[in-house]
Amino acid sequence: MDYLSQNKSYGGQQFVLSHPSEATGTEMTFSVYLPPQAEGLAEDAKLPVLWYLSGLTCTHANVTEKGEYRRACAERGVIFVAPDTSPRGENVPDVDDEYDFGKGAGFYLDATQEPWSQHFRMRSYIEDELPQLVARAFPVDLGRQSIMGHSMGGHGALTIGLRNPGRFRSISAFSPIAAPSSVPWGEKALGRYLGEDRAAWREYDAVALIEDGARADHILVDQGTADQFLDEQLKTGALSMACAKAGMKPTIRMQDGYDHSYYFISTFMAEHVAWHADRLTA
Amino acid sequence: MDYLSQNKSYGGQQFVLSHPSEATGTEMTFSVYLPPQAEGLAEDAKLPVLWYLSGLTCTHANVTEKGEYRRACAERGVIFVAPDTSPRGENVPDVDDEYDFGKGAGFYLDATQEPWSQHFRMRSYIEDELPQLVARAFPVDLGRQSIMGHSMGGHGALTIGLRNPGRFRSISAFSPIAAPSSVPWGEKALGRYLGEDRAAWREYDAVALIEDGARADHILVDQGTADQFLDEQLKTGALSMACAKAGMKPTIRMQDGYDHSYYFISTFMAEHVAWHADRLTA
Repeated sequence: MDYLSQNKSYGGQQFVLSHPSEATGTEMTFSVYLPPQAEGLAEDAKLPVLWYLSGLTCTHANVTEKGEYRRACAERGVIFVAPDTSPRGENVPDVDDEYDFGKGAGFYLDATQEPWSQHFRMRSYIEDELPQLVARAFPVDLGRQSIMGHSMGGHGALTIGLRNPGRFRSISAFSPIAAPSSVPWGEKALGRYLGEDRAAWREYDAVALIEDGARADHILVDQGTADQFLDEQLKTGALSMACAKAGMKPTIRMQDGYDHSYYFISTFMAEHVAWHADRLTA
Repeated sequence: MDYLSQNKSYGGQQFVLSHPSEATGTEMTFSVYLPPQAEGLAEDAKLPVLWYLSGLTCTHANVTEKGEYRRACAERGVIFVAPDTSPRGENVPDVDDEYDFGKGAGFYLDATQEPWSQHFRMRSYIEDELPQLVARAFPVDLGRQSIMGHSMGGHGALTIGLRNPGRFRSISAFSPIAAPSSVPWGEKALGRYLGEDRAAWREYDAVALIEDGARADHILVDQGTADQFLDEQLKTGALSMACAKAGMKPTIRMQDGYDHSYYFISTFMAEHVAWHADRLTA
């Protein structure tokens, strides 16, 4: 692993790192915040970890610079990891002028269709490779994990959490793409990455996963009412309905006047971190 | 004024605006955060204002996105204004490949030398034009102002505060260029903007202003010990010495292990806002 930068912040250390990924076949960049509790930790002691998955067009940098998570992580002793949203590099296929497909739009799935299937394997990267890598380099307790994300990353957090019961103590999302199979962003991405057989899409759709029997006990969602993507792309209502039918009791909060930006995310970030920390340190 | 963006955050509103400036002869962009207390304010009621001046290469955007000031401003009911660091535009003279002079490096002075003197008038802009403009558009109480800044903006906050006794209740800085007349950044900028007569530089040098009799009762400075610019460019020690000789009692804190970045600034931003708020609401 290459350490690209290290900056002291809120008593802890903010790292940005890169490494060659087996899953994607590319160099991948991510950030890790170690809270002050990581310093002077006893030999075998480890800290809980919160994974943050970002939205369309983002890299690790957006939340790392604008997410305002470090204060809360420092208060509660939580390690915060923010991966990239897709493979990158000249040898990775892409499409011109489409912000919602290709680079920056990995949708946290393993593509099965050419030319995407070689590199677009963000599911394997996030579910398998990155946790092992991070746990080798940092004092991360893989027995105490939670996951969260924004927009496409909210989709990622919900679907990864629902598909891996028992792995995450809690799942939260800002403005998640809750039902990608039935919105333009999702139909485009799932159709091209996975092919036209919609049965293959269901494991990458939080609402479909719940309809198919997946369950999670601790889900928190914040959704701004002034979010320009709410009606057409996000489908918070469909998530509420699916959870209700399944007897699940998520906390889904409509936040008056907030939009889709990091001005919204940062407002409620500390609450999300504290909510996860309550479950990670229980 | 043009409203370029408006985003709800921490219950208040983050604005980015632009306007044609008389002082600089250019279009100028700045940001204003209105805390939630601004909503439903009685007709004549106003809120205190905290001015934040940014460092070399920055625009309003750096602190607006990475400064983590909104939570504290929302808690205390403080309006936060972040101007740009220089005039911009195709008709503004600049130098290639110099990050520390020209655009992005206005040094909060009124230039007297050609070709800079026409547009590089950031002192007049910040001291005279912008406060009047902001007070016409927002419920800002010009009787309750404080000022702060980072690096070149720390120099700006200290010098503007020291030159205008009684205007600001408090002055704070992160990693200020405290004695520009005797460091490479300052010698280059003051020499080219103001000419080689060093007597003209003294009103743009916090240490020189104090030596010449300027005083301020409430000064707070945070300086990281791992700041790569500390020894050569910032001269925190010279500020301490000048204050001691003058009988001033600033709070100057060396912060162990912190560097020159927004990872440092954001760590202590809430403390600075609260410190100013204590004086603005006393």
